[in-house]
Amino acid sequence: MTVALVGAGPGDPDLLTVKAARLLAEADVVVHDALVGAGVLALIPESAERIDVGKRPGRATPQEMISALLVELGRQGKRVVRLKGGDPFVFGRGGEEAIALLDAGIEVEIVPGITSSIAAPAAAGVPVTHRGVSAAFTVVTGHRRPGEPDVDWQALAKVGGTIVILMGVSHRAAIADELIAGGLGSDTPVMAVRQATTDDEVIVRCRLGELGTTAVESPATIVVGAVAAFDLTSAPAPASLVAH
Amino acid sequence: MTVALVGAGPGDPDLLTVKAARLLAEADVVVHDALVGAGVLALIPESAERIDVGKRPGRATPQEMISALLVELGRQGKRVVRLKGGDPFVFGRGGEEAIALLDAGIEVEIVPGITSSIAAPAAAGVPVTHRGVSAAFTVVTGHRRPGEPDVDWQALAKVGGTIVILMGVSHRAAIADELIAGGLGSDTPVMAVRQATTDDEVIVRCRLGELGTTAVESPATIVVGAVAAFDLTSAPAPASLVAH
Repeated sequence: MTVALVGAGPGDPDLLTVKAARLLAEADVVVHDALVGAGVLALIPESAERIDVGKRPGRATPQEMISALLVELGRQGKRVVRLKGGDPFVFGRGGEEAIALLDAGIEVEIVPGITSSIAAPAAAGVPVTHRGVSAAFTVVTGHRRPGEPDVDWQALAKVGGTIVILMGVSHRAAIADELIAGGLGSDTPVMAVRQATTDDEVIVRCRLGELGTTAVESPATIVVGAVAAFDLTSAPAPASLVAH
Repeated sequence: MTVALVGAGPGDPDLLTVKAARLLAEADVVVHDALVGAGVLALIPESAERIDVGKRPGRATPQEMISALLVELGRQGKRVVRLKGGDPFVFGRGGEEAIALLDAGIEVEIVPGITSSIAAPAAAGVPVTHRGVSAAFTVVTGHRRPGEPDVDWQALAKVGGTIVILMGVSHRAAIADELIAGGLGSDTPVMAVRQATTDDEVIVRCRLGELGTTAVESPATIVVGAVAAFDLTSAPAPASLVAH
């Protein structure tokens, strides 16, 4: 008995891993999130059962129920794919599901996916690291659930690398205030991207001091730091971006 | 004229993206790094020219030469794949190559890859985030080149999330000292993994205070933080790991 926890990547089905594509094609049942791209869902075979456990406003499947469902399906000996947007271990709660399955005596196969935290900026021409500009990047959730450990945003502002914020649209004004209080300039470049790698991609650029009042629709990936001013999708590259 | 900057993932050819596998199969020429896995290199068709520009001790191809080579190959109208271990924008210097190509009027296609910074820990059963344990992770290079911006390790110690260090084996003692000086306990769990997702995978576990004197062979991915004590590859999951 094995359940595969599979990352679906940022949206484009071409960015599935070879392994994820094969597991999907062979699945008996696919349990998926709201964040999995439509193009990826279209690859689920007709013969497979498809269960949507996506968390949406006003309609939430508690995590415990999802874990219990996976255990039940795993016990039935089916080829179960638990498909998650991005990577299962990047705010995907894959660890919790893995623990529930292991505790029930069911083997777990972790199949990493392309995380939106890197690929969404990349699709907008923003590299999370760049020689001479950024030697570190932090991926952080802007959404705090009860019991969640705190992130020290002011310390984060002092680290000196790129900051990638997931699930942070609704708290972006407070986050920007904390980062500025921690020492980041209010003119620090910011880029937000929504529906990255799909035809509906939307890119917003602003400065950190304007983030709270700039229209950004959720869900989006927000990048804060010098690299957010880059656009490596189109020529010519601005001279200011060339590494020194 | 287009050159594709393609992430090869952590080693296992099954973790290539569908797009990367297709571009490799159709390539006229593949310019690759030392960090690309042997199983991935084996997928390069016989008909394609293969150019190894890997940086190794005592044998380095300067970055400027690599960029110039890509420009030259791109101008020849060949189907060029620049294949990099992990993801092109995670310390892959993909940004520099993209800029050189764009400046030369050559289009660039960025194809993200599974980054070892997440997948290497995952292969060892370590999730970089976990509800109730870690709400952020920072990926940082332990290798400082001249002109590289500094990372404030003591600030990083205060952020409160997982720390993933790439290229940090030789400076691990100094890094551990800085993190401890920044407030991390010397008993903070550490996991180091080498050759992740391949048959030669080696996992080392220790505490932060012992990192400097624990044998770790380069290159390895080093994870610092509570999640480094996890092992989600084998049952039963220790009760202490269950999220509260």
